[in-house]
Amino acid sequence: MTALLDKIGRVGTATLTTQLMQNHGLFNASIRGVAPVNPKSCRFAGPAYTLRYLPLREDLLPRQHLDHPDNRMRPAVESMPAGAVLMLDGNGRRDVGMLGGNLAMRLKQRGIAGVVTDGGMRDLAEIAAMELPMFAGGPAPPPSFAKLMIVDGQCPVAVGGVTVFPGDIVVGDGEGVVVVPAGLAEEVAEGGLAQDHIEGYIHRRLAHGEALPGLYPPSAETTEAYRRWVDAGEPDDF
Amino acid sequence: MTALLDKIGRVGTATLTTQLMQNHGLFNASIRGVAPVNPKSCRFAGPAYTLRYLPLREDLLPRQHLDHPDNRMRPAVESMPAGAVLMLDGNGRRDVGMLGGNLAMRLKQRGIAGVVTDGGMRDLAEIAAMELPMFAGGPAPPPSFAKLMIVDGQCPVAVGGVTVFPGDIVVGDGEGVVVVPAGLAEEVAEGGLAQDHIEGYIHRRLAHGEALPGLYPPSAETTEAYRRWVDAGEPDDF
Amino acid sequence: MTALLDKIGRVGTATLTTQLMQNHGLFNASIRGVAPVNPKSCRFAGPAYTLRYLPLREDLLPRQHLDHPDNRMRPAVESMPAGAVLMLDGNGRRDVGMLGGNLAMRLKQRGIAGVVTDGGMRDLAEIAAMELPMFAGGPAPPPSFAKLMIVDGQCPVAVGGVTVFPGDIVVGDGEGVVVVPAGLAEEVAEGGLAQDHIEGYIHRRLAHGEALPGLYPPSAETTEAYRRWVDAGEPDDF
Amino acid sequence: MTALLDKIGRVGTATLTTQLMQNHGLFNASIRGVAPVNPKSCRFAGPAYTLRYLPLREDLLPRQHLDHPDNRMRPAVESMPAGAVLMLDGNGRRDVGMLGGNLAMRLKQRGIAGVVTDGGMRDLAEIAAMELPMFAGGPAPPPSFAKLMIVDGQCPVAVGGVTVFPGDIVVGDGEGVVVVPAGLAEEVAEGGLAQDHIEGYIHRRLAHGEALPGLYPPSAETTEAYRRWVDAGEPDDF
Amino acid sequence: MTALLDKIGRVGTATLTTQLMQNHGLFNASIRGVAPVNPKSCRFAGPAYTLRYLPLREDLLPRQHLDHPDNRMRPAVESMPAGAVLMLDGNGRRDVGMLGGNLAMRLKQRGIAGVVTDGGMRDLAEIAAMELPMFAGGPAPPPSFAKLMIVDGQCPVAVGGVTVFPGDIVVGDGEGVVVVPAGLAEEVAEGGLAQDHIEGYIHRRLAHGEALPGLYPPSAETTEAYRRWVDAGEPDDF
Amino acid sequence: MTALLDKIGRVGTATLTTQLMQNHGLFNASIRGVAPVNPKSCRFAGPAYTLRYLPLREDLLPRQHLDHPDNRMRPAVESMPAGAVLMLDGNGRRDVGMLGGNLAMRLKQRGIAGVVTDGGMRDLAEIAAMELPMFAGGPAPPPSFAKLMIVDGQCPVAVGGVTVFPGDIVVGDGEGVVVVPAGLAEEVAEGGLAQDHIEGYIHRRLAHGEALPGLYPPSAETTEAYRRWVDAGEPDDF
Repeated sequence: MTALLDKIGRVGTATLTTQLMQNHGLFNASIRGVAPVNPKSCRFAGPAYTLRYLPLREDLLPRQHLDHPDNRMRPAVESMPAGAVLMLDGNGRRDVGMLGGNLAMRLKQRGIAGVVTDGGMRDLAEIAAMELPMFAGGPAPPPSFAKLMIVDGQCPVAVGGVTVFPGDIVVGDGEGVVVVPAGLAEEVAEGGLAQDHIEGYIHRRLAHGEALPGLYPPSAETTEAYRRWVDAGEPDDF
Repeated sequence: MTALLDKIGRVGTATLTTQLMQNHGLFNASIRGVAPVNPKSCRFAGPAYTLRYLPLREDLLPRQHLDHPDNRMRPAVESMPAGAVLMLDGNGRRDVGMLGGNLAMRLKQRGIAGVVTDGGMRDLAEIAAMELPMFAGGPAPPPSFAKLMIVDGQCPVAVGGVTVFPGDIVVGDGEGVVVVPAGLAEEVAEGGLAQDHIEGYIHRRLAHGEALPGLYPPSAETTEAYRRWVDAGEPDDF
Repeated sequence: MTALLDKIGRVGTATLTTQLMQNHGLFNASIRGVAPVNPKSCRFAGPAYTLRYLPLREDLLPRQHLDHPDNRMRPAVESMPAGAVLMLDGNGRRDVGMLGGNLAMRLKQRGIAGVVTDGGMRDLAEIAAMELPMFAGGPAPPPSFAKLMIVDGQCPVAVGGVTVFPGDIVVGDGEGVVVVPAGLAEEVAEGGLAQDHIEGYIHRRLAHGEALPGLYPPSAETTEAYRRWVDAGEPDDF
Repeated sequence: MTALLDKIGRVGTATLTTQLMQNHGLFNASIRGVAPVNPKSCRFAGPAYTLRYLPLREDLLPRQHLDHPDNRMRPAVESMPAGAVLMLDGNGRRDVGMLGGNLAMRLKQRGIAGVVTDGGMRDLAEIAAMELPMFAGGPAPPPSFAKLMIVDGQCPVAVGGVTVFPGDIVVGDGEGVVVVPAGLAEEVAEGGLAQDHIEGYIHRRLAHGEALPGLYPPSAETTEAYRRWVDAGEPDDF
Repeated sequence: MTALLDKIGRVGTATLTTQLMQNHGLFNASIRGVAPVNPKSCRFAGPAYTLRYLPLREDLLPRQHLDHPDNRMRPAVESMPAGAVLMLDGNGRRDVGMLGGNLAMRLKQRGIAGVVTDGGMRDLAEIAAMELPMFAGGPAPPPSFAKLMIVDGQCPVAVGGVTVFPGDIVVGDGEGVVVVPAGLAEEVAEGGLAQDHIEGYIHRRLAHGEALPGLYPPSAETTEAYRRWVDAGEPDDF
Repeated sequence: MTALLDKIGRVGTATLTTQLMQNHGLFNASIRGVAPVNPKSCRFAGPAYTLRYLPLREDLLPRQHLDHPDNRMRPAVESMPAGAVLMLDGNGRRDVGMLGGNLAMRLKQRGIAGVVTDGGMRDLAEIAAMELPMFAGGPAPPPSFAKLMIVDGQCPVAVGGVTVFPGDIVVGDGEGVVVVPAGLAEEVAEGGLAQDHIEGYIHRRLAHGEALPGLYPPSAETTEAYRRWVDAGEPDDF
């Protein structure tokens, strides 16, 4: 897993979506409507750990208290494996904050790789200072139990319009967050690294003023030149 | 259960929401964004039987075929108890139809009390002719597997912004659909029948031209007059 | 006023918007997002009587009870002049019903010309049976005090994106509802009647198979022919 | 063309979307957000004739007058072939009406098969009385030139989120409107008729109380029984 | 008032919403859909001074000119008390800017504590440079009189879905803006300061790696330890 | 053209909208829902070069490949004139990225003045580093061909609700992007420069603590003082 996460974590999310679409027929992998709480600390990759919310039913509100024996948040925070990505299905609600600074601090301490929710987020400044990669729908002072309740965990959920199964590989960077099905992650990581590498080569040539035809998308000749450049140790001048 | 459904099925949905709000503190019980497929056949009451959908992941599409051994729709249709209300969490998507005429026909044959979804619906004319009470987000020719997949059943779901647990009592009429938590249904039914009855009495007096003050909301005097009228056998002239 | 309402009440809402745009520079007069509760009883014209709502603040909820001395609904219903149109600024909320059957019955008894709201409506079947012209955003079982509170009356409000001042002339038909500033109503009524009349003449000629050029929009020749037809007593054959 | 339209016009729109998805990989063919002006007269099929609108630029408003030499609406109405379907890209605006009664009357006289727009519509009662199949986003009294202008015609457009090329086959019924690419229409019509026929057979058996397994989707055995039933002349009892 | 503002201005908005919900039953106090124009200058607290807008009626446009004798903006800007917070009900319109640089400069000079609107804002760079705390729905070059008109002032309004009465205490920080009813502000300020203080203590212990159970939410033992820590002068090591 | 662009490029977008509204009756010139990819590099002015997209039809997907002979993107990028502004009608879709780093690099090399789209954008960090002024609806990793296809170029399009004709002058700054019809650009530029200049003068006086009446909007006396100040060489102290 570590090797896979190391590889896939170096692939940009834009490239991951291209790989998923063109090689695997998956068109709906990029979470919509989220932004990084701290743009300088937004790169992460890890397996999904999910919590599912539904609209609050007031008679069940007591169960949402962190100390209630049936509450699912506290055991999740204390038991989810280090390196996992906490995926909170916030029903797309921007008017409540799914977490606040104290839970985020504990997640950080427990070595969580990242947090993603299509709901809002509390205590943004406090969280941004932690360097815990976190994506949310936006700032929202009110606590989530104003509108939502946790009903289940480690089950399939939807975050930002994308289905996530526990164990799917979730990757984030400055562009956004992409969900890669666990069984495809190795192949997607390899394909993505290769794509990013040749596109970086093309980028340099474009930066030298070359025109698109033949260069991008690469013709057979360009691909051959790329291979020679790689074989030559990727020299700065070419 | 039959006695309860008989009672609660005679209470209007507007009254049910008032009862839930004023006597039980539940403010979010009325399903939003749905309309009856056949307004002449939209009255129903029964316990919820739920199916949960998530956005389609194309690699899992084969499981959505009705003949796939993992498909959850066919066993649900064949095994859900007569009198139950099928609650389909369509993720609020209006661009796909959750069911079509053939599944609806089988549900009708199996004695299902009603179907409610915040997704779209196919074959509306065919379904309207069946007199199967059904509420949906609107007509939608495309099949649901274009965008959605079933992931679970008989679990809590949200339909039209309202959380539904299996076994909750669902009631529909021309106004809409209301979800009553199972444990409150008896009390809500009794309170609702009483409320509807006195409001009907007030309605008659208003129709005779009386003014609101003292009459609606009823003063102690009006309540007393109502009781006398009930004791007198609810005569037409009063 | 009666003569004006009689005239303007015979002009279609589509024609009224054309008159307001072309002759008075008013582009925003047609209320959006409302539909008649009873399409067979939706024609009305009368001066606006307004009530203003804002999002509920729970500490002020008691004032929303119809019996509270500060409640504005009951005095409005009992004192607004017969022939007026009740305009309820429902903040565009479709999840609560602004009125129910009993208040509607009293409005009907008091000779109100119509009710328009961009909020939801309760007890639709009961209201439809009253033949009280009413436009609303849709059915909504929950009472309005779940989300809204009345804060003012007989002040300017917005209904469905259109500003309404008390006394503006409000006209409804099967197409929708249009607000005509009081000071323009006479001129708009005259212009509208004239427009509808010549368009009806053109409609007949189109129905006989004539082509658009010269006929619609009418050329000088067509206008002349129209005048002759009027002078001739509007004969059926022409 | 006539034979094709006759065939495809007998296939329901729900079936057409299934054919396009399963056999041709087209997932976005069903126009969203439109409803029939007259539900009793909503069945049509014909080749698309398109008009393209953009947000109004006030300096170009004079060109939108039907009598302006550059106006595209009048020549379109007078020259589009009988049997065509007028597709108006209304930019999804519900606050203006794309056509009114007089233009609709002329379209009816010219033998147009139908009109579809994701914009609003004026003069609905008048149009409903014409039995001209028309789908629109809803009623809207104001004329379209309040917000929109025609910029082109017989070019590709989008209506209700679906791309339409001139000449694509457009089919409408009570469920909605589906766009079939011209080159696929024959195959889709054949496939759709076959699908509707066997589903009708299954529907009858379901109506007799048979269970889904083996029957729907049809097993090889059911398909065989269906063929025998067809060969036997489709008897009422089977 | 100064002492109150000093206290409540040190409480975070997330904490204020918790206090309002748990101790006063107010669930709708956090303004939605606004962001600070200058995130480095967004902290403020003061009593609300309100202006109410409605959709423009073109015949009343002249009154919106700042020099018109009936214009309400100029007298508001010149007469509102220093320290007040200007609350502009922008009807949630993001396509027009409620204020520009010159009015903002005057507000800054007059000692206004802050400006909040759910409408758009012009001249953002100029305003950001003033260090005038301002929250708006986003940048919008067009002036507000393109779509809106002021109709009233110092009356209740809604900003971002939250009702504001003149004199309510409005507090802003990096998370957002919260409205505290005037009568509750003292109690909310006290409760909020106490909550923030113990949560800060817990935050430090979490940062040292302690687990949630017993610590957050605090058990009786933790509360006791907190009190001892306070009594000991809040030492850095504990 | 250079002189015009130099002039109009110094006018703020807020001022441009005021000029267009007050002097030319154009109320819809400011593109909605876009933000600069790099706020430090967002100032541009140039003539529009347009590309039009429609929802993808899967059978036409091959044409969207940059190497397909019918693809319109590559020839546009290689042939559009230096100094032009690329306007991409992204149908307002935030879920796909209209361009990525490599095409942006080529546009930068070709001397394009700016790029504006109401769709999403890929590779934001890479693009921000290029100092290519670009406005988009937000980050979106997936490539545009997941949902959209190019159907035409150098035709009128709508971007963010505003109609753009090829050759219209497009101006961007930190506030947003405004479209100025080609024929009005000279007059708007002159008017805008004059407006900005006197408003800057007023701004200084406001910053010295003067009150609004007579100063803003400027009275005849203030205008006279402004002229004297200009004639005196715009001295710092006045």
